[in-house]
Formats: sequence, structure tokens, C-alpha cells
Amino acid sequence: MERLREFEVIFYPKSVAVIGASTETTKFGTVFLDSLVQFGFKGRIYPINPQAKEIMGLKTYPNVKDIPDPVDLAFITIPASAVPKVLEDCIAKNVGAVVILAAGFGETGKEEGRKLEREIAKISKEGDVRVVGPNCFGIYCPASGLTLLPGANFSKESGNVAFLSQSGGYAERFCQQAKGLGIRFSKVVSYGNACDLNETDFMEYLAEDPDTKIIALYIEGVKDGQRFLQTVQEINKRKPVIVWKGGLCEGGGRAVVSHTGALGGRKDIWDAFFRQTGAVRVNSLEELIDTILIFQHLSSSCGRRVAVMGTGGGTGVAAADACERAGLRVPAFNTKTLEQLRTLVPPIGASIQNPIDLGNPWTSPSTYRRIIKIASSDPQIDALIIVMWHLPLFYARRELLWKSFQQIVEVPITIGKRQRKHVVIVLCATPTEVEMLEVEGEWRRIKDRYIAARIPVYPTVERAAKALNNFIAYHESQKHINDSSTK
Amino acid sequence: MERLREFEVIFYPKSVAVIGASTETTKFGTVFLDSLVQFGFKGRIYPINPQAKEIMGLKTYPNVKDIPDPVDLAFITIPASAVPKVLEDCIAKNVGAVVILAAGFGETGKEEGRKLEREIAKISKEGDVRVVGPNCFGIYCPASGLTLLPGANFSKESGNVAFLSQSGGYAERFCQQAKGLGIRFSKVVSYGNACDLNETDFMEYLAEDPDTKIIALYIEGVKDGQRFLQTVQEINKRKPVIVWKGGLCEGGGRAVVSHTGALGGRKDIWDAFFRQTGAVRVNSLEELIDTILIFQHLSSSCGRRVAVMGTGGGTGVAAADACERAGLRVPAFNTKTLEQLRTLVPPIGASIQNPIDLGNPWTSPSTYRRIIKIASSDPQIDALIIVMWHLPLFYARRELLWKSFQQIVEVPITIGKRQRKHVVIVLCATPTEVEMLEVEGEWRRIKDRYIAARIPVYPTVERAAKALNNFIAYHESQKHINDSSTK
Repeated sequence: MERLREFEVIFYPKSVAVIGASTETTKFGTVFLDSLVQFGFKGRIYPINPQAKEIMGLKTYPNVKDIPDPVDLAFITIPASAVPKVLEDCIAKNVGAVVILAAGFGETGKEEGRKLEREIAKISKEGDVRVVGPNCFGIYCPASGLTLLPGANFSKESGNVAFLSQSGGYAERFCQQAKGLGIRFSKVVSYGNACDLNETDFMEYLAEDPDTKIIALYIEGVKDGQRFLQTVQEINKRKPVIVWKGGLCEGGGRAVVSHTGALGGRKDIWDAFFRQTGAVRVNSLEELIDTILIFQHLSSSCGRRVAVMGTGGGTGVAAADACERAGLRVPAFNTKTLEQLRTLVPPIGASIQNPIDLGNPWTSPSTYRRIIKIASSDPQIDALIIVMWHLPLFYARRELLWKSFQQIVEVPITIGKRQRKHVVIVLCATPTEVEMLEVEGEWRRIKDRYIAARIPVYPTVERAAKALNNFIAYHESQKHINDSSTK
Repeated sequence: MERLREFEVIFYPKSVAVIGASTETTKFGTVFLDSLVQFGFKGRIYPINPQAKEIMGLKTYPNVKDIPDPVDLAFITIPASAVPKVLEDCIAKNVGAVVILAAGFGETGKEEGRKLEREIAKISKEGDVRVVGPNCFGIYCPASGLTLLPGANFSKESGNVAFLSQSGGYAERFCQQAKGLGIRFSKVVSYGNACDLNETDFMEYLAEDPDTKIIALYIEGVKDGQRFLQTVQEINKRKPVIVWKGGLCEGGGRAVVSHTGALGGRKDIWDAFFRQTGAVRVNSLEELIDTILIFQHLSSSCGRRVAVMGTGGGTGVAAADACERAGLRVPAFNTKTLEQLRTLVPPIGASIQNPIDLGNPWTSPSTYRRIIKIASSDPQIDALIIVMWHLPLFYARRELLWKSFQQIVEVPITIGKRQRKHVVIVLCATPTEVEMLEVEGEWRRIKDRYIAARIPVYPTVERAAKALNNFIAYHESQKHINDSSTK
């Protein structure tokens, strides 16, 4: 518990010193300070710069030790060689914790950098101050109004997703990309070289953090493989852990070494890690976000048997292929379902098989509703994927058709509350001409409607199917682990 | 040659009769007629409807036989059971060719439908009139101002890509999605059940068509496997053939039968097809379009060794992984390249390894240019993938940084003309909030700049790498086939 309290000053500081803030607009220090100010950090902010009296209207001190009040968190953005001295100043000032953005340590691959990193690790240990980094971006915690990631426009709302990232760039992009999908964060940490606090330390904290329900990681290499594995194994039983492991290929592995100085590890070792922990494995930023989206919105798990519903035979064929490629199944409906569907779907130019092809995109909202209900009532069906690709078509004839299209869009939302089976929407991406930007705007508004109704929505069937399969696989692995442990 | 001339009335008709046009706006016949008129077909258009005198301001005839002038092409959108009679009317009128949109034939799986399909096949054969369909959307040929696909807003420009699609929906969506990427078409055909003209017939025509350089197919099943294989094998040597085969999985296969009545075929048979023909295999609409884009813009092939350049260590790690997963290689640079890069890339917080991490997104345009030149001059590098993810970042601070960002964007374009190695751009997708729509607008404008400069551009490294790998694999298979045949 003592250990956990140490993290409180990292995530909920009441004052932050930005050491290396400057008056030049494109310097990292300035970008981060600017972002912290614009994001609206409510605590006190102290820029530290020996040459300036004031930066961005904030009183500036030459040294952290000159600040008259207590400092919870120091953010260091100066050259690596000057870090040890400044770290000692922070200890002398009794700063709560330190985030070191500066690069030029172990990740350079040079003895000089490695020596510096050992030095700051030693100083922090002896001075008993916790360090995040070096070579990182730091922390984003909306509950405390804090962002040390460059994210002036990050969401100010809190959520239940934590993200630990060895890459600062991905921590930032992840927050930016996830925002539009309504994914909200408890804590985001870019921890870089992890000379003091490492991935497992943060995992342990997040395991106990009541605000965190889902933990996502972008990881290049780990400090203590065995401890990390056991920690993930334990946490994953209570909170889903979704891991994107970068650098398993030749070029990727080389990049890992020069990025964070970590040893990427062999592919077979990581295969075993995923097998033993049951953590969810994803392979890209896109898949990471897609997967979190479904974990956020679907409460209980389900089987792999999906019904697919769309308009157009080709859409159905391709959707079924994509589902099965992702690991889902698209089984035939039972006789009762077929009989009921037969009364609603045109006998010609359409299909009541699974996938259902409605034939005509101008299906009435009430028919649309009944078809969804019938398909999802089939006992052989666990979830429903609805493919909507005709937004541009309806938009082009919006004087006539927009109202009925809007009604169709609402059907899965109004139906959702009364039916037990999961629904996932594929709202196909819109054409990319500049002149079609308004259609993209409509796409976004409809996407927001579904997100607000807690229905996961994706631009392609491939992405929807992968995410759904990841979700189901997680719950299957949990069941398997539980079954094994009770034997 | 006689056979080829038969196709001229299909693609370049001077007059079109729309049999089944109606005054109801959401009827298929009306949608197609409306689209033909709005697209600006320059020939004569004759709506046929026994109940109307005039539709959309066009004089309407009760029967195709009542039209006083010659009719090149008839488009039939009436119920299946009425088609044989109307087809006979078309023959009596000496119509050049017929497109049958109507569904309700072999694809229903019922004897009644199969019988009807055999009947229209027989009538067309005896009457010596070529039929496209039934159960199809038809033709889009910008050179003749014709679209029987619902595509009032399709591009009026011609291009060198032909697309044959068993699915009408995909023919339409393909044209819509490809438009924004500057992909322009010679001919697009949705041929449905192929009761008369089938995929191989159209392939033979496109092989000789001087306007067609690249042939794409969405295919569910073929009529005569052996003839199709030999035809593709032959054509693929001269014009790349890119094939998306739908329905190889359980649900997909079932959907194929009810969609176009085709037999999907076993996976191993299709594996052999791709091996023997060297046709490019793709698995989604997205991958089909991505692949065509690269075939359109890269003139010569290259090896698989790519340099990856971006900002941020994580970006590089993930990009290298994605490249290698797609089949490309990301080899280390040679000593000379490393020495040259060392003078330009910051020693700290960046990396001159391949992938190159520029460290700071605010790299000057001139440095950016020199780094690209050095990386692509390495003899061990065949192509360069440039990852740009910081558009939202620059846009957020556009008063300060937009001009220099625009200059960076231009670098690969101005450099392109002087260097021999291929460049592919990854312009990362923008966040999806409604409020960020302007950033999406900028994304689209930059995308257009690259397309205009004939540089392929993709929203993710995964998609770029897959497309590049497909392009290289095609040329490798051609070399292999040529080598085998000269032995």
C-alpha cells in the first residue's frame, strides 16, 4: 500500500514543475508546457529556466529548489547529460516524483548513455524518488486535469481504460484516435526506458486502481519477464489486458533496440506469454483501439456464431468470409428463423440465408426492426453484425430518403435495450473525395449515435470481426483458465 | 473479331431503352434511369412503361418495339417471369444487346428460377442477341457517358482500369471508393448470373481493349474453370489481373449460392488457380483498391527491401513489423548511408537505423529532403515508405507550423521526379470526432496532391505494405513464369 501511494503524486499532483520550459515555440519543453496549460491543469505550474523570468505568463524559476511551495511532480525536458544534477535538485527539494522526457540514455546503444541511465537510476533509488522514463512523454490523467503528453485537446472526461505505452508517440496517437470513438481513460502512461518504474510496477498499480477496468499496453520489451508474466496472468483474470507487442520481426526488433533500448524477445517466447496469461494479442494501433471499443461496450461474452445482415449479395459473401477469417462462424439459420424471415425479405434479389441480404436498400424501418429481432432470436446465433454501406447513396438523394435512412439507423439502438444478443455495426467508410466531406461528417454523427448507445461501430467488417473475435477469445481463455484451476 | 464487335454496343451504345422505368422514385428502374440521365448519357434514352406517357421528361413507350428509331442497348428491370417475353420483343426490335437487372433466376436455388434462366439463355442464343446478367447492375463506361450502375456521381473521366464484378453492389461501391483515389475506369461490368456473356467472355474482350491496362475482378464462381484459368493465365502476362475471390469460407460459400447461383469452388482449387496464373490475390474491397492504386502509379517493379522513415520510435517499430508481416523486408542500411544520415538526424531521441526515426516532427523541409535522398540511394534499399502521422498535431498549431508542414508534404513530390526508387506515402488516418472534420479535409487535400503526383498514398502502414507486396509479387511471378517458359 505504501508503494501504491507513491503513484498518487504521479497521477494526481497538485503542482508540476516543468524543467526545461523555454520561450521557443517548437522546443519540446514549450510544447509540453503549452499543452499542460491549455488542457487546463488546475494545480500550480512552475516553469524552470535559468534565462527567463516568465514563460506563457507563468512566473519562472531558475531552479526547482527556488520554488517557495512544495512540488509534487517534476517534468524534466533538458539534455540527458544535465539530468543527474537536476534530479538531485529535485530530491533536495523533496519533489514527489519525476518524469524524465529527455532521451540520450540506454536507447542510444552507447556506453555513455547506458552509464547515464544507471546513474539516474542510482540517484532516484538513493534519494527515494520515483522516476517515470527517461525517454518518455509521461502521464495523462483527466481526473486530475493532467497531461504531460502533448494533448491540449485530449478529452477532459475520465473513463475506465488505462494505457501503458513504451512509445510516447503511440500514447499520444492512441488518445487522439480513441477520443472520436468515445474511449475515455483513467490513466495513460508513456514510460520509455523504465529506469525506475517499469511496466510491471504500473500494472500492479492499475490492478488496484478502482477507476481502471481495462488495461491496454504497447510494449517493446520488458525488464523482468517472469514477474511481468505472473502479474499479467493475475490481473487478466479481473481486468482484461490487451497487449500490442511491437518489434517481433527483423526490422522491428532492430528498431526496438534503438527506440527504448529494450530487448524485444523472441517470437516463441511471446507466443507462450499470450498462451499462459490469456492476454488479448493485437497487432496494430487500429486493432488495439477496435478491441478496446468492444470491451468497453459489450458486458458479457457470447459464442462465435454470428448472423450477418446487410444489403447486397456481395456484401454478404464478403462479410461472411471476413468473419470466418477472423475466427467467427456464420452458421445457417434454423427452420423457424427461415420461415419467419421468408415473410419479410423479398423472395427475389435477396436472401434469407445467413448472411441475410435484404436486397433493396430501401427496406422500411419496421421491416428492418423485425428482421433484426428474428435473426437474433435464432438459438444458433450468438451475435449480430449489421452492415450498412449505403450512407453515400442515401445522402446523394437526401431530399427524398434521408428521413427514412435516419430511422433505419436508429433501429438497432431502440431494439438494443430489449434484446439480449450483442449487436455490432459496420458503418462502411465513405468515399474520400474532398467534395464528399459532408458525407464523412454524417458518418461521424451516426458513429457517435451508436457509441452513445454503447453499440460498437466499425468502418469495415474485417475490423468488426477481428475485434469481436478478440473479445470472445478473451472470455474463452478465462473460462479455460478457471476450468483448469478448479480441476 | 466479330465477337469483339458485339461488345461495342454494350459499352458504346448510341441509344438505351430502360424497360421497367417507373414514376415511383425508389423503384430500381427509376433509380437506374435517374442515374443514367444525371450522369449525362449523350445518346437517346427511351423509358419503356405501358402505363406512362412520360418519365423524367422523356417520352415513354409502352413496348420496346414501339420505338421508332434503332436501339443499341436494352436495360431490363422488370420481374423475372416477364423477362422472356420482353427479351423476344428486343430481338424482334433488333436491339444490339440486353442487360437484365431482374433477379429471380438461377440464384434462387429453385427449379422455377433455373428454368427461367435456361429459357432466356436459349432465347438469346436463338435470337443471336448478347445478354449481360440476369441479376446484375450492368455497365459503366465513362468514355461513352454510360452508366447502368447507379452512379450519377461517378467520375466522367476515363482511365485504364477495368473491373468485372459478379456483384452489382461491389461494382458500385468500388467505383465510389476508387474515385477519391484518382482511380479511373475504362469499363466496369456487373455481370451477375452470366447466363450468356460470362467472366471469361469479358476477359477476352478486355484483353484486346486498348483502353484497359489493369483488370480487376470480384468473383464468386466461374462458369468454365479451365477456360477461365487459361484466359487469365494468358492475359496476366500482358495486363495485371487482380482477383478478389469471395465465398471461400462456410458462410461465404452459402451466400455465394444464394447470391449468383454460382458454385464457389474449393479453396485448394483456387489456391492452384492463383499459383498457375500468377494473378494477384486480394481479400477485401479495400485491398483490391489499394492494390490497383499501386499498379496505376508504379511503372516498374522493384525488390522487397524497403526503407521506412517516420517520426517516433514506436511508429518505426510498428511500421517495420507491418512491412515484414506483409512480406517485405526492412534491412539494415549500409555504412555509407549510416554515416550520411548521422550528420542529419539528431543523435538523441531519434534513430538512423532502418526504420529511420526523425525524432522531432519539426524537421526542416531541406533536412527531410536530404534524408529521403540518402535513404533511397542505399543500394540495399529498393523502395521507401514514408510515414506521416502528425497532420493533426500541425493542424492544431497551424498559425505557427502549417506552412512548414505543407513544405514537408511537398518534398516527396519534388524529389520524386529525380530519383529512381519508388516512394509510398502513409498519411495516417485522422481522428474521427465531428469537430475534427476540417483535419479530415486537409488529409484529403494532401492525399490528392500525392495522387496527382502519382505517388501511392495509404492511411495505414499495413495497407501500404500489403499493396506494395502484392505489386512486387505480381512481377516476381511474371519473371518466374517467363523464366520457366524459356527453359
